[in-house]
Amino acid sequence: MRCRRCDSKAVINMRQHKLSLCAEHFIAWFQDHVARTIERHHMFSKDDRLLLAVSGGKDSLVLWDILIHLGYNTDGLYINLGINEEISYSDQSAEKCFRYAEKNHLFLHQVNIPQKYGLSIPDAAKKSYRSKNRTCALCGLTKRHVFNEIATKYQYDVLLTGHNLDDEASVLFGNTVNWLGKYLARQSPVLEASSSGFTKKAKPLCRAYERETTAYAIIKGISYFEQECPFAAGATTLSNKVLLNDIEAETPGFKQRFYLSFLKAKEEGLFDPSLSDRNTDFQPCSRCGQPTSNPEVCNFCRTWENILVSRDS
Amino acid sequence: MRCRRCDSKAVINMRQHKLSLCAEHFIAWFQDHVARTIERHHMFSKDDRLLLAVSGGKDSLVLWDILIHLGYNTDGLYINLGINEEISYSDQSAEKCFRYAEKNHLFLHQVNIPQKYGLSIPDAAKKSYRSKNRTCALCGLTKRHVFNEIATKYQYDVLLTGHNLDDEASVLFGNTVNWLGKYLARQSPVLEASSSGFTKKAKPLCRAYERETTAYAIIKGISYFEQECPFAAGATTLSNKVLLNDIEAETPGFKQRFYLSFLKAKEEGLFDPSLSDRNTDFQPCSRCGQPTSNPEVCNFCRTWENILVSRDS
Repeated sequence: MRCRRCDSKAVINMRQHKLSLCAEHFIAWFQDHVARTIERHHMFSKDDRLLLAVSGGKDSLVLWDILIHLGYNTDGLYINLGINEEISYSDQSAEKCFRYAEKNHLFLHQVNIPQKYGLSIPDAAKKSYRSKNRTCALCGLTKRHVFNEIATKYQYDVLLTGHNLDDEASVLFGNTVNWLGKYLARQSPVLEASSSGFTKKAKPLCRAYERETTAYAIIKGISYFEQECPFAAGATTLSNKVLLNDIEAETPGFKQRFYLSFLKAKEEGLFDPSLSDRNTDFQPCSRCGQPTSNPEVCNFCRTWENILVSRDS
Repeated sequence: MRCRRCDSKAVINMRQHKLSLCAEHFIAWFQDHVARTIERHHMFSKDDRLLLAVSGGKDSLVLWDILIHLGYNTDGLYINLGINEEISYSDQSAEKCFRYAEKNHLFLHQVNIPQKYGLSIPDAAKKSYRSKNRTCALCGLTKRHVFNEIATKYQYDVLLTGHNLDDEASVLFGNTVNWLGKYLARQSPVLEASSSGFTKKAKPLCRAYERETTAYAIIKGISYFEQECPFAAGATTLSNKVLLNDIEAETPGFKQRFYLSFLKAKEEGLFDPSLSDRNTDFQPCSRCGQPTSNPEVCNFCRTWENILVSRDS
């Protein structure tokens, strides 16, 4: 297997792109692939101040590496969720983010949930009234709140996450097999800023296979935390990933075709955009000031107030 | 495994419905299930004259059996495609239809393609300019033409086909993974009649699993032709069926949920109905008089004229 560009020994064969490349040409190709995704979806420009949510996993650290290489002004945001039960998941992933930022002289915001709110996500979830998937639901609610809070407070133009094509295809598959119109209408590489106070969001790795981000991290020697969150075991998005991997193995390029044809159909007006909940009426939460569709207090504030009342009672 | 209704020995366990039934109660349940589908989707009434396309396979003969039992006024239509190469597919399936109609004193229209148009479908496809999947494409085009021709000529109110839930889920899956908006907007248990000359179409088995129609045929002793069309081997709809069967085995009820949540989302306005090609402007074909979106001659007439010119030149 030879590199398509220079004919030296290839390190990766991407059947989905019918392309084999050596280490050097793979890195250049992948950086360019991400650059084209950013331009194609009008995600941001060199003048924008970017805030990237980093978890310590490969995708977000690889994205940070590429954005800095491409000359984008990007700070990081690490949220310590306090998940340190059977394995010290949060402490070890925090370490990876600190190291990467320090080594590359990058600025990293840090928000520590147990310190800021008094309970770790797993302990808070035990106090929550939600009975099913409560840890993952509370974690998502809390992260979305903190992302927008920090992005607004420090006036970032765009908030970025490291979701890759495998993530997007898996979420899309879950939304599709149940035909969840609201989520189908909303799922997008970019969510524009809203006048009600949501910062613009973008996913520059949405066209990158997970296998490609892994190869990039390995070749560039980026040290990342490899374990899945212990609460993710059994999640539907993971079983959808296994299924899509099986289909991809039979039909290389399936995930890409599925996701990109979805984006194309959407651009061509397949869904009524008014179905997306971003078009709901939002007003500021009376507690935290962030936009909410609730009459007074946002879901985040209400949930955490209930948790803390339950803890103290 | 006991029958839920009478506690005698069950012959079928339908995990998708969490229901086990004995032979007698399964037949009654299945007939009622189809009756409810007909009502739920406003397919037709006892006053309507129905034309059912029968192939000799289990689904269409089972549907005929149920419609007659329910008291619907239903004639059959068998199209002999002249597929008699390695196996005498057409002749054997014709035999099953004739026998069923004769035994039950039912009226069966018969259209013989080689006799009417001078060539069998496989021979005609060899003369066709279409290079890929040309046999299946020509067969579909020809059947749709004949269905509507006979339905119009004899003034039937509704044209029925035996498509079951496995067929519908498989087609939906193929349309979904490629996000074919026009086909998603069109796929439906019922297509209303159009003023341009399309007869109303309905699929009363669209909520019935293939396994259920097979069980019905076996229990009722309906003799049907079991082989797949020799040209269907390798078709995408078949490989989608295998995939959906795998998912169904892991998650009983998957196909039903996928298809029914699609219908629900559609009813709730997920797609813009103007995307469906039934809303295109149609005018009568100058040759056959059937509705066409072409300027003068419909695809059917144009294709067959080209084939016959090519044969005779």
